[in-house]
Amino acid sequence: MLKKQKDIYLKTREKLKAYEYALTIINWDTETEAPSGALEKRSEVIGVLSSMYNDLVFNEEYINSVNYLYEHLEKCDDLFKREIIKVKKNLDSTLRLPKELIVEASIVSAKAGPAWVDAKINDDFSLFEPHLTKIVDIQKQMIKYLETDELKGYDVLLDQYEEGLTKEKYNEFFNLLKKELVPLIKEISETKYTHNLDFAKKNYPIAKQKEFAKYIASVMCFDYTRGLDKESEHPFTSGNSRYDVRLTNHYYEDYFVSSIFSMIHELGHATFEQQVSEKLDDTILGGCSAMALHESQSRFYENIVGRSYEFWKKHFPKLQEIFKEQLQDASLEDFYHYVNKAECSLIRTEADELTYPLHIMIRYDLEQALLTGEIEVKDLPTYWNKAYKDYLGVDVPNNKLGVLQDVHWAGGSFGYFPTYALGSAYSAQFFNAMKKDLNVEKEFASDNLQNVNAWLKDHVHQYGDSKKPEDILKDATGEEFNPKYYVEYLTNKYRKLYNLK
Amino acid sequence: MLKKQKDIYLKTREKLKAYEYALTIINWDTETEAPSGALEKRSEVIGVLSSMYNDLVFNEEYINSVNYLYEHLEKCDDLFKREIIKVKKNLDSTLRLPKELIVEASIVSAKAGPAWVDAKINDDFSLFEPHLTKIVDIQKQMIKYLETDELKGYDVLLDQYEEGLTKEKYNEFFNLLKKELVPLIKEISETKYTHNLDFAKKNYPIAKQKEFAKYIASVMCFDYTRGLDKESEHPFTSGNSRYDVRLTNHYYEDYFVSSIFSMIHELGHATFEQQVSEKLDDTILGGCSAMALHESQSRFYENIVGRSYEFWKKHFPKLQEIFKEQLQDASLEDFYHYVNKAECSLIRTEADELTYPLHIMIRYDLEQALLTGEIEVKDLPTYWNKAYKDYLGVDVPNNKLGVLQDVHWAGGSFGYFPTYALGSAYSAQFFNAMKKDLNVEKEFASDNLQNVNAWLKDHVHQYGDSKKPEDILKDATGEEFNPKYYVEYLTNKYRKLYNLK
Repeated sequence: MLKKQKDIYLKTREKLKAYEYALTIINWDTETEAPSGALEKRSEVIGVLSSMYNDLVFNEEYINSVNYLYEHLEKCDDLFKREIIKVKKNLDSTLRLPKELIVEASIVSAKAGPAWVDAKINDDFSLFEPHLTKIVDIQKQMIKYLETDELKGYDVLLDQYEEGLTKEKYNEFFNLLKKELVPLIKEISETKYTHNLDFAKKNYPIAKQKEFAKYIASVMCFDYTRGLDKESEHPFTSGNSRYDVRLTNHYYEDYFVSSIFSMIHELGHATFEQQVSEKLDDTILGGCSAMALHESQSRFYENIVGRSYEFWKKHFPKLQEIFKEQLQDASLEDFYHYVNKAECSLIRTEADELTYPLHIMIRYDLEQALLTGEIEVKDLPTYWNKAYKDYLGVDVPNNKLGVLQDVHWAGGSFGYFPTYALGSAYSAQFFNAMKKDLNVEKEFASDNLQNVNAWLKDHVHQYGDSKKPEDILKDATGEEFNPKYYVEYLTNKYRKLYNLK
Repeated sequence: MLKKQKDIYLKTREKLKAYEYALTIINWDTETEAPSGALEKRSEVIGVLSSMYNDLVFNEEYINSVNYLYEHLEKCDDLFKREIIKVKKNLDSTLRLPKELIVEASIVSAKAGPAWVDAKINDDFSLFEPHLTKIVDIQKQMIKYLETDELKGYDVLLDQYEEGLTKEKYNEFFNLLKKELVPLIKEISETKYTHNLDFAKKNYPIAKQKEFAKYIASVMCFDYTRGLDKESEHPFTSGNSRYDVRLTNHYYEDYFVSSIFSMIHELGHATFEQQVSEKLDDTILGGCSAMALHESQSRFYENIVGRSYEFWKKHFPKLQEIFKEQLQDASLEDFYHYVNKAECSLIRTEADELTYPLHIMIRYDLEQALLTGEIEVKDLPTYWNKAYKDYLGVDVPNNKLGVLQDVHWAGGSFGYFPTYALGSAYSAQFFNAMKKDLNVEKEFASDNLQNVNAWLKDHVHQYGDSKKPEDILKDATGEEFNPKYYVEYLTNKYRKLYNLK
């Protein structure tokens, strides 16, 4: 009986994974090269493939096999046990939601996207407000259906993006940030900035930026036999398995560091996926679905390695060699200070390492307030602007540069933003542990990052989804999530950068 | 009842088309950018998707719906009638073959591919011989299963690649070529060649070749909102619908005309697909599956337009502008003669317009002889070499440059080669008809080919698969396939080029 049920499960899994594979490649194609005229027909095809996928998920025989295996977990090996627990959890969520609500959610989101674009272009929140009101309402309904004994309210959504993370932990985290970072940022904003940043305003030809991006990929030991890089409007990483990991970058002639750090960031995600153990091939655990854990790796490479003095001590000469003319008068010190300049600003995606988490904190607070009904959608701009003034000290001149800047809410992604800040905090905790095993100054300044990669493979990457993120963190660092490492890391780094005592 | 059966049919069609779409995109990705390490897992996924596709095709409800609709054709409109007849024919073929034979064929081909590569690299036919023997045997078995009252022997295979084309028509065609072209080629090979071709040996940077390829695409009015071009090892065209037509090219620094003519050739295929009527959207008739008819369009643009004097009178100055240095001493006359140089050679894919069909004729004769058992696989090299000597007057120094040059037979494609020559012959017949409506000299020398495109859209492209190729030819030209136009076209063109009386 177990064998029979397992067979049913494995055969269906193989089919589901084949659909996912096809949809991933089609999506990659859409984002990187498909002609605009193809997209209407394409969305119909995606609809048909998705509906065949859902037919499989809702197939009774399959559901029964998952339930049977879940009831006989003791007969499964550890890896398969983990897989079945994950599948059962997702399946239960899916089955608990009424089909009409799922359909309604997708219709509402499909309309909200263009409305958000319109609202942003016209700087008119009222064009988006009715859509967002519906989205918040649907999120509230979904929460009701999905609540369990362990997970209530906003926690239901938070857990979807980072298994095991709840308001309790996030509150502790963000409260510490509020307490420690807000005053530090204020102090920094009052110091006088003395570095020469003229070089940053020059023009950096894209072909040469690409040359440096390839150099960075080799420093990070990206395996091009199992991946590739390309261009797209917004950089992202996409993978089907450790054998096929793809990332994109975007290049601006007048903002050259953007492509450097987005390359390192995406390569961080990609390195994670390429280093998942081959033991997880063909399972559903061969990639990491925990958003904050994934982000912790991209942020580790981007900020902790990529914005370190040691890294640029080694690689700035190469950058200067490629951009002879533009960087002839720039010193390593200037460059290092430029890529670590802290500045209170309006736009999350352009924020520096220090102020970034406060942008997230503001969204976290507002999401929560919307879902509890504490505030209403129509008052969102007011609360948004107040929070930016309170925490970052900036005046928001319009909604385009304020509450309308991110697409996430239009897509119904509530509970996703907090993972961005959490990822950075995890990365600092990993860094603290890594220091015990590696001479990080030496490693960051090496020809390549193979030893850093190897440490992260051993402690994080190899596991993919086969361990809970909280267990990976605990086993790698010897303790549960502790935001103090993040605050310490930022405080030390920025006090030193700004010569504060 | 009709409505119910039609619903079943249409729902299945939608799903089958979604699988085809996914497989086309995955294949495009494989050919143009997928990392090498991804391919093993990928072939497993393709296997799963193909098997889900086959499950749908072999579904009894679907088969019944096709049979029901076929029995009630009188109740279908013309377009749907044509669709059902095509589907029924393909389905019957599929169902007539024992599943074991299909599986055996795919296993044999999967092994034959690498064996062929090995044999070619090592110039050792004996490494490929046992595989080809099995392939020929399987083809013979397939023919037995697929024979009908109308189609016997080799005709079964020929019809698969070009509906309605049989040995009788091909024999007439190739006999005429033998009679008319072999002596002409001999005559040409005895004339003295006087043009200066030094420019052809120079180095042509790939970036500039790409610039000219884009220029050609604009001359041919390729619609980039519904398509794209890219690079791959072997140029090809691929499409999902008129809304997404993609082509590839390959660039050689030391052989610049290669990329020009393969670009025009693939754009010919692509123009066909982009100009199919939107009335055929979502049907199975929205692209052309007749190989010779498709090839007639690529060859029309490549040879009849692209190797005409008028075309280069207009566009050679642009080419000279891009390759100032390389072409400064070359004249239009030199270039025109260079791209039309007739020369007996060993390799089909590098053959010129005049000698090309003889390469095909040799393959056609040999395929037939193999299938009737007139010759055995082990003797194939001997017969191959003799045919090249008899018809092209060349000595084949080894099998690598002889019988092992093409991959087609390793893939089990018997009956496909002849469509290559037939396509050229069709194109000459279309050209003859076009001349009655258009001033072709003027059109070929225009800024762009919009009027040529429009004529071909009206007479050929719009129909996609909704008419039989023989009907398209007949309606467009006023008569059935007649190879005399091709022979006349080649004879006139080459006698003039070589100053023969």
